[in-house]
Amino acid sequence: MRIGILGYGNLGRGVECAVVQNDDMELVGVFTRRAPESVKAVSGVPVYHADELAGMQDKLDVLILCGGSATDLPEQTPEYAKLFNVVDSFDTHAKIPEHFAKVDASAKSAGKIAMISVGWDPGMFSLNRLYANAILRDGNDYTFWGKGVSQGHSDAIRRISGVKNAKQYTIPVDEALASVRACENPQLSTRQKHTRECFVVAEEGADLDRIEAEIKNMPNYFADYDTTVHFISEEELQRDHAGIPHGGFVLRTGRTGKDGEHNHVIEYSLKLDSNPEFTACVLVAYARAAYRMNQRGMSGCKTVFDVAPADLSPMSGEEIRAQLL
Amino acid sequence: MRIGILGYGNLGRGVECAVVQNDDMELVGVFTRRAPESVKAVSGVPVYHADELAGMQDKLDVLILCGGSATDLPEQTPEYAKLFNVVDSFDTHAKIPEHFAKVDASAKSAGKIAMISVGWDPGMFSLNRLYANAILRDGNDYTFWGKGVSQGHSDAIRRISGVKNAKQYTIPVDEALASVRACENPQLSTRQKHTRECFVVAEEGADLDRIEAEIKNMPNYFADYDTTVHFISEEELQRDHAGIPHGGFVLRTGRTGKDGEHNHVIEYSLKLDSNPEFTACVLVAYARAAYRMNQRGMSGCKTVFDVAPADLSPMSGEEIRAQLL
Repeated sequence: MRIGILGYGNLGRGVECAVVQNDDMELVGVFTRRAPESVKAVSGVPVYHADELAGMQDKLDVLILCGGSATDLPEQTPEYAKLFNVVDSFDTHAKIPEHFAKVDASAKSAGKIAMISVGWDPGMFSLNRLYANAILRDGNDYTFWGKGVSQGHSDAIRRISGVKNAKQYTIPVDEALASVRACENPQLSTRQKHTRECFVVAEEGADLDRIEAEIKNMPNYFADYDTTVHFISEEELQRDHAGIPHGGFVLRTGRTGKDGEHNHVIEYSLKLDSNPEFTACVLVAYARAAYRMNQRGMSGCKTVFDVAPADLSPMSGEEIRAQLL
Repeated sequence: MRIGILGYGNLGRGVECAVVQNDDMELVGVFTRRAPESVKAVSGVPVYHADELAGMQDKLDVLILCGGSATDLPEQTPEYAKLFNVVDSFDTHAKIPEHFAKVDASAKSAGKIAMISVGWDPGMFSLNRLYANAILRDGNDYTFWGKGVSQGHSDAIRRISGVKNAKQYTIPVDEALASVRACENPQLSTRQKHTRECFVVAEEGADLDRIEAEIKNMPNYFADYDTTVHFISEEELQRDHAGIPHGGFVLRTGRTGKDGEHNHVIEYSLKLDSNPEFTACVLVAYARAAYRMNQRGMSGCKTVFDVAPADLSPMSGEEIRAQLL
């Protein structure tokens, strides 16, 4: 199947690498709103201006949208679902119902599949919440994130005056995880679930105590957490904190039996060296499903909940039953 | 939806308890090949002879088959798929393709859904192998079982002369798990992956050294493993080893990026106090999906790979998108 990428940041580059790993896919091109001649694709694939997508309906089977959830995807997904099967990683949880409704209308009228909120959370974590809830009906859900870099929190620190650069790690609290795994069904406060660790490059002569206090007292971002601040040099930041790792844990504990006498723990976890590259791999698997579902005559907005797992695999039904079941 | 249970051992009783936890389901009855008056259902639901199923087509939406894979299911699933939507837990991995073909022919001709090999392995573990393989195309798969009771290995010990009773635990080797999680991509021999621990009640005067040697040298079952044998009293066995716990780990590690420079670990694990009760919960969730898929006009043999996750949940599409995505 023929794939296009719209948006060429970390996620778009990740999709490019992931498509190369899949023999049943061909990358037609990267599409950008920047000047195409200013963008060089890692794999050497052609780079086009996004405006050219209008004439590419015969040349692409799925367009993977690699823009951001704040401003790009709310516009782009409904717009391009009128022309192509599309996949996006829309991750503003609270706005998913609104996004779904707009995208569904576009995709249905065009007879296309639009797969939204694909990635790991929302995405694989959501799937695991659903499976575990359907199986263990009497139980409790827990999601922990990290250890990993939060771009939003890193950006928030960078906006403080006197800060040159910063990287923030979200870290699950080991004791909380252990209590959940032991089926103690704890009620966990925000502070009990995660800690935050910040690596900050200050401008020369800046008041470090003031910066540290501003970080630790920042409402929503840090005030409800135990936060550690380390001041380091730009060189140390580049050397030790250049990556974009992430991951986390989805757990459900539940009870079965006549009197709920048996406990069970279902746990799914991810440990990712590169958050955008892993998200990209999930997008590419769901691009395969979007194409297949559309080939079968389906249309409209879909999420990971609507996709039969077999549609994600390049293998045939016989092969997956023989090798993976 | 109206549910029937065929076969009333540990799994059947687990299904009974699981149906009670689901408000959208009603348990119509337990069906047995024994004399119905000799069987008392835990929940007080009526017990019928299996022969009465022939007249129950209007009264059941899904029949959950709780027999064994060795002799019951190869006969029962193709037979009852001619009358009902059915779900089974057929777990002889090597014979799944053959079972699938026979069941598919029956279910298609009757216009019913027959969901086979549902449980946790095959079942949830299979799903996690498929998802992880579809996402991380360049990687390695690992499945570890335990710590848990293997009925087959316990039975094998009980067949040794001089053995009164026995329980065998399969235990994953911590070092192997740690190596996999560290993305070392180890090639693991049978012995390196699992150990086996046996609790044996010997008959009075039996030769314990001979029994221990027979266990440790038993081909296929124990010879390829590091096996520990403990002789204990029947009282100790009943007190400390009465449960049927199980569980395990499915991992895939893989590489992404231009030069495969980023490592990722996907891990799914289960820790189950009761193997049959958890399997039962999975069967019941897939019974819901079988009914819904048949209501939409689908028929034939299906596995967990063919079921869109949304069909497993009692919640609506709007609810799962708002609460679980």
